[in-house]
Amino acid sequence: MQTGIPPRVVILGAGFGGLWASRGLAHARVGVTLIDRNNYHTFSPLLYQVAAAELEPEAIVYPVRSILRGLPDTQFLMGEVTHVDLDARRVETNGQVVAYDFLILAPGSVTHFFGVPGASEHAFVLKDLEQGIALRNHILCCFERAMHEPDLARRQNLLTFAIVGGGPTGVEFAGALAELVRGPLAKDYPRLDHREVRLALLEARESLLSGLPERLCTYAQNRLQRMGVELHLRTIVSEVTRSSLRLKDGTRIPTDTVIWTAGVCGDPMVQLWGLPVSGGGRVSVLPTLQLVDHPEVFIVGDLAHSERDGVPVPMIAPVAIQQGTTAARNILHLIRGEDPEQFHYRDPGMMVTIGRNAAVAVVGGFSMSGFAAWVVWLSVHLAKLIGFRNRLLVLMNWAWDYLLYERAVRLILPLRPFGHPGDRKMATQGPGVQSER
Amino acid sequence: MQTGIPPRVVILGAGFGGLWASRGLAHARVGVTLIDRNNYHTFSPLLYQVAAAELEPEAIVYPVRSILRGLPDTQFLMGEVTHVDLDARRVETNGQVVAYDFLILAPGSVTHFFGVPGASEHAFVLKDLEQGIALRNHILCCFERAMHEPDLARRQNLLTFAIVGGGPTGVEFAGALAELVRGPLAKDYPRLDHREVRLALLEARESLLSGLPERLCTYAQNRLQRMGVELHLRTIVSEVTRSSLRLKDGTRIPTDTVIWTAGVCGDPMVQLWGLPVSGGGRVSVLPTLQLVDHPEVFIVGDLAHSERDGVPVPMIAPVAIQQGTTAARNILHLIRGEDPEQFHYRDPGMMVTIGRNAAVAVVGGFSMSGFAAWVVWLSVHLAKLIGFRNRLLVLMNWAWDYLLYERAVRLILPLRPFGHPGDRKMATQGPGVQSER
Repeated sequence: MQTGIPPRVVILGAGFGGLWASRGLAHARVGVTLIDRNNYHTFSPLLYQVAAAELEPEAIVYPVRSILRGLPDTQFLMGEVTHVDLDARRVETNGQVVAYDFLILAPGSVTHFFGVPGASEHAFVLKDLEQGIALRNHILCCFERAMHEPDLARRQNLLTFAIVGGGPTGVEFAGALAELVRGPLAKDYPRLDHREVRLALLEARESLLSGLPERLCTYAQNRLQRMGVELHLRTIVSEVTRSSLRLKDGTRIPTDTVIWTAGVCGDPMVQLWGLPVSGGGRVSVLPTLQLVDHPEVFIVGDLAHSERDGVPVPMIAPVAIQQGTTAARNILHLIRGEDPEQFHYRDPGMMVTIGRNAAVAVVGGFSMSGFAAWVVWLSVHLAKLIGFRNRLLVLMNWAWDYLLYERAVRLILPLRPFGHPGDRKMATQGPGVQSER
Repeated sequence: MQTGIPPRVVILGAGFGGLWASRGLAHARVGVTLIDRNNYHTFSPLLYQVAAAELEPEAIVYPVRSILRGLPDTQFLMGEVTHVDLDARRVETNGQVVAYDFLILAPGSVTHFFGVPGASEHAFVLKDLEQGIALRNHILCCFERAMHEPDLARRQNLLTFAIVGGGPTGVEFAGALAELVRGPLAKDYPRLDHREVRLALLEARESLLSGLPERLCTYAQNRLQRMGVELHLRTIVSEVTRSSLRLKDGTRIPTDTVIWTAGVCGDPMVQLWGLPVSGGGRVSVLPTLQLVDHPEVFIVGDLAHSERDGVPVPMIAPVAIQQGTTAARNILHLIRGEDPEQFHYRDPGMMVTIGRNAAVAVVGGFSMSGFAAWVVWLSVHLAKLIGFRNRLLVLMNWAWDYLLYERAVRLILPLRPFGHPGDRKMATQGPGVQSER
């Protein structure tokens, strides 16, 4: 491979995996093309705070081109990947075809609805920024509509928020939502009877946050209940409609807002590209993160099915970061004619915030809860954010929240499809409150 | 009117006029309903900075309910006004009917295209927040697409930005856009030949900023030209298409981006309500801001056609603020059985910023340009923003810009129509780069 032309590396996805892979290749003599459908990187661990009107979208996203300015041999291509041809070694986007010598696939994951009828159509999800903004708009709209809804049943539909899935995202969002509706929204809507507001968190297993030490699970459960969140454990959802949630035992919860945080899986699109998809829609990889039949292709992040002590590694940011770094290093090994190294996951621990002064964390074998865990959570998330400005913005918002019991970003912001004004008609729904169901 | 039930005042529009009217009525014994299609107030004088990737939308908007928290007898209704029945004294929104004893109409203005074919379909405008965001997204998308466009003519279409109208908005946006493309975007797209980027400002009259002292107009023109903005004075646009601008003299400017800042007029919807519309789509009012045949109806802000020394007052925020205050005071006069007072406009002056260290201003009869005017402009705009947090955000962004020659908000943010996930299909265009024309 030591020819005159530097090898071309294509990286799909500017999430944690793709970005850290780019950084790992930055100062080597390789031409890197990073492709993403957005021109920004999203700090997804704080996405739920956008949905809870706590952070503005701008605080958790960062322009990819700003990150790449320091990397002279790295190009960015904004586009939607439509096909990957593993044999011809090229990636097709809407409008471009890019050939590669090495490929790093880091497309992340999509929401997994487990085949529950109606869920993919009617449930809100929290996987990308637009979903976060749409959910915030919807929640605030529900309150605006409830203010002027004379019918009690309709009002309760508007004021019931059901979160499906008691993992970290479900727990964090439930806590943030409880603080939003019990605090700032209670002040915003003084004429509303806030006893009509109902927050429900549903989990199929025996406890929330399964996998964490029992003491922490119990702490999280008690804390959420004290914040006014109804817990429904061992509860299986059988159907989602536009105005209700049906449980396996036949119970019906009338609600206009179902938030689905019950699971994620690999993007089903990769099956079409002939990648070997295993359980959970993830792609099996060698311990070096390479594809079995294509050693020039690496899979990192949520899409990669790699194991640690026989257990699949979790689909979280630290894994993606470490895998991105390993994949970049392995490409450099291959270019130099060396053997690729195996991926070894260094578990940084796990932390989940529940609300003001309340979090649970397992770090370095120590488990903790309450204020100390909350301070650790805050510090780690602030430190991991990209960019001084974003850190400042987030810190400012958190301080505001904390000191004033306030949420500054309670905005139902206009959303309009892309493109030319001539496409205006495509914005089918105006920003007014919708009265239809 | 001194009965037991407090009079009901309905205010349409939470812009400057409507908001200051609400404040004026806050501590009187009247029930106020403020109606707006958005749940926020927009500080429109800085809208152009959202379009120029300088400020995040959250920095210039403020939740209406936050403003109203201190006003116990004031209700907010988020909705789109569909009809005003002057005889029955009621306002209809999508879903609600609200009766009034007094009405304050403060709907603002809409863009005036002067009947130029294609302008309303194909030109970008800068009247509300969604338009500002859509324009920012479009400009950044043009650069993303130009990066990978091999055809020179197509690339020039993408990289030509034509601003129609050399009034304050056109001048301020031209300056902000010039600083964006010559600074941060030149760093973001180092492989692009930036000599292909063309910024044109077109004005039908002899000079920019007509109405200001000639010295200031000349200063603004020289400054913009030094910043790389082509000036086309005495230039009349005859047609806008999706990919070009045609002038009256037959010249064709190929461009995918026409920004129309040539004028505003009253919302044509008010004609349907039977209001007496005069030139410019504005509604003629008595010197007391009342409608001739409906003394219980007040018109304030851009919609009101009121005169000062025989000249119509300009359609700017200070007028709206003063008129809102006067209308509120006049309603209180009428309730107390007193005569309403006449509106007298106190002209606070006029200021237009062109770019870094460069502005023109006429304040208290003094005209100034350059750094001093720029400092005055910054201070006045910061001071007039609502909310400490927004001031802090704006100040932070401006400092960032000023010190680092940077624009932090270079994000092509996802935009998706409102509503339920079931409506997802309505988002007809994804956030990928579009390759069609």
